[in-house]
Amino acid sequence: MPHIALPTDAPGIRGLLAAKPSSGLRLSELAEQLLRGDSPLGVGDRELIAAHVSALNRTRYCAGAHGATAAHRLGGDFALVEAVQTDLATAPVTDLQRALLHLAGKVAESGLSVTPEDVAAAKAAGADDETVHDTVLIAAAFCMYNRYVDGLAALTPDDPAAYRAIGAHLAANGYL
Amino acid sequence: MPHIALPTDAPGIRGLLAAKPSSGLRLSELAEQLLRGDSPLGVGDRELIAAHVSALNRTRYCAGAHGATAAHRLGGDFALVEAVQTDLATAPVTDLQRALLHLAGKVAESGLSVTPEDVAAAKAAGADDETVHDTVLIAAAFCMYNRYVDGLAALTPDDPAAYRAIGAHLAANGYL
Repeated sequence: MPHIALPTDAPGIRGLLAAKPSSGLRLSELAEQLLRGDSPLGVGDRELIAAHVSALNRTRYCAGAHGATAAHRLGGDFALVEAVQTDLATAPVTDLQRALLHLAGKVAESGLSVTPEDVAAAKAAGADDETVHDTVLIAAAFCMYNRYVDGLAALTPDDPAAYRAIGAHLAANGYL
Repeated sequence: MPHIALPTDAPGIRGLLAAKPSSGLRLSELAEQLLRGDSPLGVGDRELIAAHVSALNRTRYCAGAHGATAAHRLGGDFALVEAVQTDLATAPVTDLQRALLHLAGKVAESGLSVTPEDVAAAKAAGADDETVHDTVLIAAAFCMYNRYVDGLAALTPDDPAAYRAIGAHLAANGYL
């Protein structure tokens, strides 16, 4: 049960955004910029970072919603997303994806966990400065969204079909 | 040394925001809403939450900048801010401030660390639902800002006078 009264029974962050539209708008605009705005990273790869960090933070709603969105934007490859969320070390991703997802996982631990070697490994795999910037910021942002959702105990569907529907909507329409 | 090339030598998050203005604008607008926008919490109390979470995350730049901003907006009481950042249990704050700062600290650990008892304690001390919402969201947001700053190894001044100046500026002008 959520820790505060919510104006709707919309699941996950949507119920929270509706509870205070003035902050909800700013959170939605930030998500739209980070996941759909200008970036050297494709939408699917950015959603995969969001899904990975959300799984590390054990935020079921965000891991499910962004996992499904990533899968829809990566050619319908739900198995790839599940492999990343289960064990990054063995997931069948590219060297660049693995280095960026590893970097994102360090950010989820703490910003202070990121080493020059983590960044150098990402650059050796093909990342430029903007790619590193966007990876760190998306990972950091999901440490916020995850804590907002869990810290207020947002409504979290159990049915996997709910996340496929949310992912299909976000893959097509974004966050605004 | 920062992990990516930055266009200015502006300290802390300012150098990062300048590196990518499209995301920088969204991050600044969110900070302005959370710390200066509509809320039952005063500006000083919101900055104190930001300062406390930043100290827990060991992000020196944000702890210094928001600590000084909080002090400026709480009647110049730098000793109070230092006491909170050193040991919340013994800091001379009100029961409501202590309950909200405790709640914010739980969010910094993980959203899943927040219990119904933490929220009930805040409400018993006088918090309404919007106060709980804003406390959780500000704490969550600083888990993002802190990770962005440390994850890219932003420039961090050593001189305490630098933070007093940054705090005076933010206390007067906000984030836009």
